[in-house]
Amino acid sequence: MSEPVLIVGSLAIDDIETPFGKMDDIVGGAGYYASIAAGLFSPVRLVGVVGEDFPPSALELLEGRGVDLEGVEIVPSGKSFRWAGRYHTDMNARDTLDTQLNVFADFNPILPQGYRDSRYVFLANIMPELQLSVLDQISPGAFVACDTMNFWIEGSREKLTEVLSRVDLVLMNDGEVRQFAGNPNITQAAETILELGPSYVAVKMGEYGAALISKDSRFHLPCCPLRHFEDPTGAGDSFAGGLMGYLAWANSTDESELRTAVAFGTIAASFTCETFGPEALLSTTPEAIYERYETLATITEFSPCPTDACRVVG
Amino acid sequence: MSEPVLIVGSLAIDDIETPFGKMDDIVGGAGYYASIAAGLFSPVRLVGVVGEDFPPSALELLEGRGVDLEGVEIVPSGKSFRWAGRYHTDMNARDTLDTQLNVFADFNPILPQGYRDSRYVFLANIMPELQLSVLDQISPGAFVACDTMNFWIEGSREKLTEVLSRVDLVLMNDGEVRQFAGNPNITQAAETILELGPSYVAVKMGEYGAALISKDSRFHLPCCPLRHFEDPTGAGDSFAGGLMGYLAWANSTDESELRTAVAFGTIAASFTCETFGPEALLSTTPEAIYERYETLATITEFSPCPTDACRVVG
Repeated sequence: MSEPVLIVGSLAIDDIETPFGKMDDIVGGAGYYASIAAGLFSPVRLVGVVGEDFPPSALELLEGRGVDLEGVEIVPSGKSFRWAGRYHTDMNARDTLDTQLNVFADFNPILPQGYRDSRYVFLANIMPELQLSVLDQISPGAFVACDTMNFWIEGSREKLTEVLSRVDLVLMNDGEVRQFAGNPNITQAAETILELGPSYVAVKMGEYGAALISKDSRFHLPCCPLRHFEDPTGAGDSFAGGLMGYLAWANSTDESELRTAVAFGTIAASFTCETFGPEALLSTTPEAIYERYETLATITEFSPCPTDACRVVG
Repeated sequence: MSEPVLIVGSLAIDDIETPFGKMDDIVGGAGYYASIAAGLFSPVRLVGVVGEDFPPSALELLEGRGVDLEGVEIVPSGKSFRWAGRYHTDMNARDTLDTQLNVFADFNPILPQGYRDSRYVFLANIMPELQLSVLDQISPGAFVACDTMNFWIEGSREKLTEVLSRVDLVLMNDGEVRQFAGNPNITQAAETILELGPSYVAVKMGEYGAALISKDSRFHLPCCPLRHFEDPTGAGDSFAGGLMGYLAWANSTDESELRTAVAFGTIAASFTCETFGPEALLSTTPEAIYERYETLATITEFSPCPTDACRVVG
């Protein structure tokens, strides 16, 4: 019953510094992490662009995991998108040290004919114009999730608003939700986004977990406790990929399946955080994933309300 | 079966500014909020000090809610402890604008004889020396929780470490846990504190909820979603009070009861956030409290793991 997931996003080479170390030339990008995570559950169709410097082994690795690369353009003598960042001590905040768009500057995602019937689509964080272009190319009725970032909220608000009004699920971190709505109250800020049209907002809160908010429901899940982590880069993309990969596997967007999808997204993100680059995500197994699901169930369990505990006071 | 809760902490007058407004001369203090919250479940024995400027109506209000004030000293012609603070836009961070210790500078908590057999004790955020003095005055075998703050972690580390080694439950916010342990990983940082002796660390994460961590278990609970909030001052103290009040009511510190206590603490904190000062906490009802407990159950519920969802890849 599993459907393929269409993912449109960056393939990049990153230089990263965290409180736990520093590593250069890590293959990454939102499309890369999301594809690996989604591929744990469903086949993936990837759309992106790389330069000649992108390691062929990284593309072969994706292909070996069932990722269709027909939509990945390799620009001859082009240079891949590069990002350099440094995380703060608490790792929920980071500074971008350098961004080189390179081949990404002229990226214009054209979907191969065979991708256009995709029923599950993830538009990773790219220019809203490009997200709109993809929306124009897919068949009606697909379940579409999108991510974005502060840069587009500031500089491309109108186009971004159009994107949000045309997708089913908006993924943003909590700071971006507040920023977009101009409201420090997450509940009210999410309502502002829901009023544009999407059925759900998934609020990514890094180490504090994630929330899934709709007009009449709400779901919260903590992150997986990790005794060891090195680098959160790609965690949000892995979250989105795991979430969409599971939905496509279940071929359902019922609220109950969406909650399970948030759990699998959380688990994918947890592996990504364990190492610089996607190493831990790449080497995980179904058993290790199910074990973390059980952990999430255990750490969120509590008893029904003892309805005789309160005194009447005052 | 309900036991009384002994609370030692500040009674204060606050000037507060949040993104939602500004209010001066609000009666507050950790001991005040914690007593009101604990009093929702159990009788309270309060130890603190105020000046002549402290509104008698505020003390009468406590008394009317079953708070024993024998341990509250009123210093003739003294001035009460004052605190002024301003919250950042996202309200998880705040700046202290002014602190005037006043009568609190010479505070030396002497427990009335009738308080010394208390089985449930909350040492709110005060100088670690004073927390140790209270520990010397209570009977062995009590379940003791303590709070603290960055100021004591920096300036009174040795005494604070002694406090932590003598209590059962340490309450700190996530930044303080990281700071005390010198480790950005909350799991490892909590382990550093647990190694000192306490059975549990409760990590308060403001709007992101709370975690209860022991050597072999972990519990996470989100905060109650609020469409309207004004001021988080006293939320952490209300959390501690609700938690300890419920434990004293249940007269049990089983892990299952501790999880329920974290839920009631979370609920008490949620009411406190709704208004400047403790107004919403004061006007809540058992029905409203139980309703939020149901909300917490609903927003954390998800299905068992579908153990056929993962593909074997790579």
